[in-house]
Amino acid sequence: MKKSGISVGIIGYGTVGAGTAAILLKKQKEIEGRAGFPIVLKHIADLDTKRDRGIRLPKGVLINDSGKILNDPDIDIVVELIGGIHPAKEIIISALKQGKHVVTANKALLAEEGKDIFRTASTYGADIGFEASVAGSIPIIKIVRESLVGNSIGNIFGIINGTANYILTKMSDEGVSFSEALKEAQALGYAEADPTFDVEGIDSAHKLTILASLAYGIPLSMKKIYTEGISSITPMDIQFASEFGYKIKLLAIAKRSGDQVELRVHPTMIPVDDLISSVHGVFNAIYIEGDATGSALYYGRGAGDMPTGSAVVSDIVDIAKNIQFGAAGKAPTLSVPEKNGRSVKKMEDITTCYYLRFSALDKPGVLSKISGILGNRNISIKSMIQKGRKKEKAVPLVLMTHEARERDMTQALKEINSLRVVSGKPLRLRVEGGEA
Amino acid sequence: MKKSGISVGIIGYGTVGAGTAAILLKKQKEIEGRAGFPIVLKHIADLDTKRDRGIRLPKGVLINDSGKILNDPDIDIVVELIGGIHPAKEIIISALKQGKHVVTANKALLAEEGKDIFRTASTYGADIGFEASVAGSIPIIKIVRESLVGNSIGNIFGIINGTANYILTKMSDEGVSFSEALKEAQALGYAEADPTFDVEGIDSAHKLTILASLAYGIPLSMKKIYTEGISSITPMDIQFASEFGYKIKLLAIAKRSGDQVELRVHPTMIPVDDLISSVHGVFNAIYIEGDATGSALYYGRGAGDMPTGSAVVSDIVDIAKNIQFGAAGKAPTLSVPEKNGRSVKKMEDITTCYYLRFSALDKPGVLSKISGILGNRNISIKSMIQKGRKKEKAVPLVLMTHEARERDMTQALKEINSLRVVSGKPLRLRVEGGEA
Repeated sequence: MKKSGISVGIIGYGTVGAGTAAILLKKQKEIEGRAGFPIVLKHIADLDTKRDRGIRLPKGVLINDSGKILNDPDIDIVVELIGGIHPAKEIIISALKQGKHVVTANKALLAEEGKDIFRTASTYGADIGFEASVAGSIPIIKIVRESLVGNSIGNIFGIINGTANYILTKMSDEGVSFSEALKEAQALGYAEADPTFDVEGIDSAHKLTILASLAYGIPLSMKKIYTEGISSITPMDIQFASEFGYKIKLLAIAKRSGDQVELRVHPTMIPVDDLISSVHGVFNAIYIEGDATGSALYYGRGAGDMPTGSAVVSDIVDIAKNIQFGAAGKAPTLSVPEKNGRSVKKMEDITTCYYLRFSALDKPGVLSKISGILGNRNISIKSMIQKGRKKEKAVPLVLMTHEARERDMTQALKEINSLRVVSGKPLRLRVEGGEA
Repeated sequence: MKKSGISVGIIGYGTVGAGTAAILLKKQKEIEGRAGFPIVLKHIADLDTKRDRGIRLPKGVLINDSGKILNDPDIDIVVELIGGIHPAKEIIISALKQGKHVVTANKALLAEEGKDIFRTASTYGADIGFEASVAGSIPIIKIVRESLVGNSIGNIFGIINGTANYILTKMSDEGVSFSEALKEAQALGYAEADPTFDVEGIDSAHKLTILASLAYGIPLSMKKIYTEGISSITPMDIQFASEFGYKIKLLAIAKRSGDQVELRVHPTMIPVDDLISSVHGVFNAIYIEGDATGSALYYGRGAGDMPTGSAVVSDIVDIAKNIQFGAAGKAPTLSVPEKNGRSVKKMEDITTCYYLRFSALDKPGVLSKISGILGNRNISIKSMIQKGRKKEKAVPLVLMTHEARERDMTQALKEINSLRVVSGKPLRLRVEGGEA
């Protein structure tokens, strides 16, 4: 037990770094009361030591050399908040090798290089906290690792990218286009100048990679996840979805059948009366099934300086307690042993219901051609809408199918696409839900 | 580190005891993989060793003498699942004094005698886990203590009694009376033969007592909570509420303004588009605000053998890790120091909007009399519905008020009640929400 308490060094003084520092400073007394000993922010390192983050740091705390934190024998916990793969990975590995414990919010790094990082942490007997890497203020990492420890995890459905959810909400509420909603999100600081990671589903796939590792023991690898973004969604699709009784959300999906797990991120139609379809704006939500707990849904802010900072601080306090009480580095980091025979189902093998939108000539016989191709692949149509008559011109034709196999659908769409009466690329959305 | 692992003794082999035992036995291998060492169910004690709980216990596990568990030096964790105050309290105190750690699901005991129990645990350096005491599978204790450690907790709104929520849902969906819905709940095993604790809000108040202690450091005492049940609600009120755009839910409410906290349990009108008003049937949900995290909502099963058993098992594993890693009894149990100057606001001092239903003569001048009395107490009317004309006969008259003080409302209702044109007891419901 260190009487002086636990010393923390933060590397990266951006949004989350500032939120974390603000909480550690403002709540110092309360946190000491709750932990039973002081937790002291010794240094924050950032190349930019000039910009005003609106926080009054004590003199000498802000430095521009991360090496000073890594080499300070007094610092117990290193918090990596610079993001990206390099040099974040090197910083974490170096901290672990120097006997420090690590907290990070870096989902891209864990999804892509997590194996190295967890292996190093295990070798050096270090704790590594990453609550902030998935769904900000929703403590899903702790819930899966600790609260659900007596459960086999079933399906997971997550709205875990606030930017994409903001854009879809805006498109749905105001009927604006994807690009208009994106512009607004950028103006409000919800989307970055290059929004690719958020709108193309990559960020969600990073987070799903981490969840799938914790929940099912699927070794961390981003490549296994089918990933599709929301940039092809139009206000018309949102309108059609609504007429069928659905919302469109960018979902991270893990569906389990025995030892096979489907892992996919794509825009998804969800029944309006599912609780998760009421998750608006930048909020996140995760629906998760345990074989003992049944269905549960966790809802909260997924990003932002303070919500994410709060998650970082909860990791710092947990690890600080472990250090003080002699328990650090003793609990296995990943809750499911990696060797468990589970594997990711091939995307072409999944079955689901589909929403299909074609731009088809308004001409007798077109529907028969399309439904014929679908029928040949064992895909049957549940309902159909054709809007606006424009004789011999292209109009939107929308179909909802019964359950079908992804492989069959992909083949059928290829064939339909080559029909002369169909123009443009058809849109295919997958349907989920009815669980919560 | 005990190589043989951690030994557990359960006292009480009812619903939750059976769920806990089932998980410990069925998931033994997985739990060992996750914890890093075995956790062994050594004994379950119950006076009834004959009834079939549908679980195949290994020979010798089931015994009828709880003393054998309390006096077994090999048992590390005692799980109290008999419920009620006595002898549950004596069993827990005895276990703590023998150096054992304790897990309990007993909200009534903690709310009423928790001070003694936590003091004894602290004296003997024992851990005490009570995740299962509030909202079954929703890990709200862990979330408040650990995940929100960097937050000041703001308001809490909880649907934390599944029985009452089942009854209100049934009344709302099918238009049946309270007593019909209660009968159905009893037939399905959702309500006990004596449903008082559930339908009169006492069970919710027990749980709110525990939450208020963790979230605000309000010393455990059930008496401070204003408690009102749902037995006066009629299908007519649910219908009126719906016309005004509200649902009626039995809410446990903690509202914070500075150092004062309102703590109350009563049927509450909530806007239909609040997420929490979509919580149906036996499900529980807790809305909670942190100053860093912002709004969050947790939704899941609040009761039942497996959901509650899952929460008990998560406590067992947490404490087992603490024992194995040498950290048991070291972290403060209650997260906010009890001496913090915070107090419970007097019920008569709260302000809220109200729904009022009178049975009043259909006669000119009646509304003017009632609104006059309200106006004299600074209570102004927002909207009014009178249904069905029956000249000179009593008809329901429903008012929604703007914000008013509870004391004024109580006085006004007394006066209105004494009017000759009003018959029966008026119904007063309080309105909350708009937050999530």
